[in-house]
Amino acid sequence: MEISRREWIKGSAAVMAMGSLTLPASAQEVAPLPSWNDGPAKASILAFVRDTTDKSGPKYVEPADRIATFDQDGTLWVEHPLYGQAAFALARVGEMAPSHPDWKEKEPFKTVLARDYAAMSKFTEADWLQIVAVTHAGMSTEVFQGLVKDWIATAKAPRFDRPYTDLVYQPMLEVMQYLRANGFRTYIVTGGGQEFVRVYSERVYGIPPEQVVGSSIMTTYEDNSGKPVLMREPKPFFIDDGPGKAVGINLFIGKRPQAAFGNSGSADLKSGDAQMLEWTQVGDGARLMMLVLHDDAKREYAYGPARGLPNTSVGTFSDTLLAEATKNSWIVISMKNDWKRIFAWES
Amino acid sequence: MEISRREWIKGSAAVMAMGSLTLPASAQEVAPLPSWNDGPAKASILAFVRDTTDKSGPKYVEPADRIATFDQDGTLWVEHPLYGQAAFALARVGEMAPSHPDWKEKEPFKTVLARDYAAMSKFTEADWLQIVAVTHAGMSTEVFQGLVKDWIATAKAPRFDRPYTDLVYQPMLEVMQYLRANGFRTYIVTGGGQEFVRVYSERVYGIPPEQVVGSSIMTTYEDNSGKPVLMREPKPFFIDDGPGKAVGINLFIGKRPQAAFGNSGSADLKSGDAQMLEWTQVGDGARLMMLVLHDDAKREYAYGPARGLPNTSVGTFSDTLLAEATKNSWIVISMKNDWKRIFAWES
Repeated sequence: MEISRREWIKGSAAVMAMGSLTLPASAQEVAPLPSWNDGPAKASILAFVRDTTDKSGPKYVEPADRIATFDQDGTLWVEHPLYGQAAFALARVGEMAPSHPDWKEKEPFKTVLARDYAAMSKFTEADWLQIVAVTHAGMSTEVFQGLVKDWIATAKAPRFDRPYTDLVYQPMLEVMQYLRANGFRTYIVTGGGQEFVRVYSERVYGIPPEQVVGSSIMTTYEDNSGKPVLMREPKPFFIDDGPGKAVGINLFIGKRPQAAFGNSGSADLKSGDAQMLEWTQVGDGARLMMLVLHDDAKREYAYGPARGLPNTSVGTFSDTLLAEATKNSWIVISMKNDWKRIFAWES
Repeated sequence: MEISRREWIKGSAAVMAMGSLTLPASAQEVAPLPSWNDGPAKASILAFVRDTTDKSGPKYVEPADRIATFDQDGTLWVEHPLYGQAAFALARVGEMAPSHPDWKEKEPFKTVLARDYAAMSKFTEADWLQIVAVTHAGMSTEVFQGLVKDWIATAKAPRFDRPYTDLVYQPMLEVMQYLRANGFRTYIVTGGGQEFVRVYSERVYGIPPEQVVGSSIMTTYEDNSGKPVLMREPKPFFIDDGPGKAVGINLFIGKRPQAAFGNSGSADLKSGDAQMLEWTQVGDGARLMMLVLHDDAKREYAYGPARGLPNTSVGTFSDTLLAEATKNSWIVISMKNDWKRIFAWES
């Protein structure tokens, strides 16, 4: 079978997206960002990389300072109808139910076991904390990582009927690879669980565990009869969301990013990516701030409520966030218009 | 002036110690660890690197997993008579005193301003928290970093009358450089302030800010009239000491080190480096655990109280720690016997 030029470019892009591999010269010659349509979003990424790597230009950035941060849910992979990590937690409740007969009558577990998604969508933070306490805590870090590894290898996402890790956005993989090929270090800065994402970040995004910043619960060091373990406790330690994303970047990286990519912001901007982009923009020189807008119901999902898209509580892109983006000249990526394809496996 | 072979090796070692520079082939040919005397300590480092980088051997470690962690105070630089960061705090109290006339009569500031070192050595944790609150908090991260930068550039350490950053141990710089030249990433894992050490870690140790794990206080994101800042609050956030070192390694690195270097451990082992070494040792394959013993009063300081050395509350090497080292086959580095020279500027 002859491989067409188009197939070959796609194949190269997939290899490029795999991360820390050294690129063969032939792959480097492929035009960057092949899954992006020409337009202001793609042009802004190309201009940013050109400016920050041009040693003779005024916006040159030393390689050590080339940091780019990416939100995960809704920015790198699908977050609807439910965050991947929430799906993991609900699946764990199901698996654990036989040893917890009282859950049949005890909320919030009863609702989970009844698969009452309408009721689940109204869960309070206290409900979720109870679910997290039994599914994410009370075990060592190693046991937890093993559970995540098993789940992510086998679970299928609804609608697409594919592993969750197939639901990563090919155009964003290309951005990360393109930045890395130009000396940037790519970090995930997620409101999701740091230890959850670290299990698959290297394989899926080419991002090693130490470059994943996320929310975390307390861990305590226990002797465990001479073989020490870190036990996960049912207490929040750090919430890497909203203003916490700037705090987390400073805490874990200690450098201001040159580029930041997000997708969400509640109406009060207390959760989501607004502060990560603000914190990035305050620095001097070339800075790139981008927000993914989910406006493609056909190929993925459409939600805002900005620009009249349907409202959602999962990954809200509020009118406030859109106003901030406009005021600060952040670039809004339209999935519908800017992305030639969304998933690597699309025809 | 002719440069002797010995001078040339010393010069090369100094260049090598500077960190992330690419080594010229000629420098790589210099025998590693030139400031170490031959003996079991030096031999164990050489054997560890040989084992972990020998692709055909059973103890080979993939480059991505080559992580080495180093305590700072007493392991990488002098901690007596007082931690460098404590000296910074006391100096700040002196500088701030004119705007705080009440400190003349208010403890613990009165004692600091009276330079009553005997009384200061008896400060409680609450005393130090008050000092930290006024010297390390109530300002933005940028302002704090500026203060540290100015202090470290000008302050002189007692006895040696040299900048604190001259008081780094040349043999340890050589270990870090040697590990890096063999594909290891070197991290500082310090009980000291993460944001304090990050100011000079790259210049002094060749370790970038994102590879410094330390204790931290709370920071909060504030708008500051449209130019956001992170404000440092007078509340502890994370204590990277004792069991906290294993917690911090998991939190910030997410990988178990292959090698760990420390020097201290209180009698109850609740502070110091014991857990960092235990956590390192629990992993499979080749692991290197080393403790620096300060037994050289002539060239540096001598304190334990292990092995009958004078007791101290700054960087205690307790009998309990020595017993742990013996039981677990951790290697104790004798500064007196294992180090040919201690500082780069020694004759």
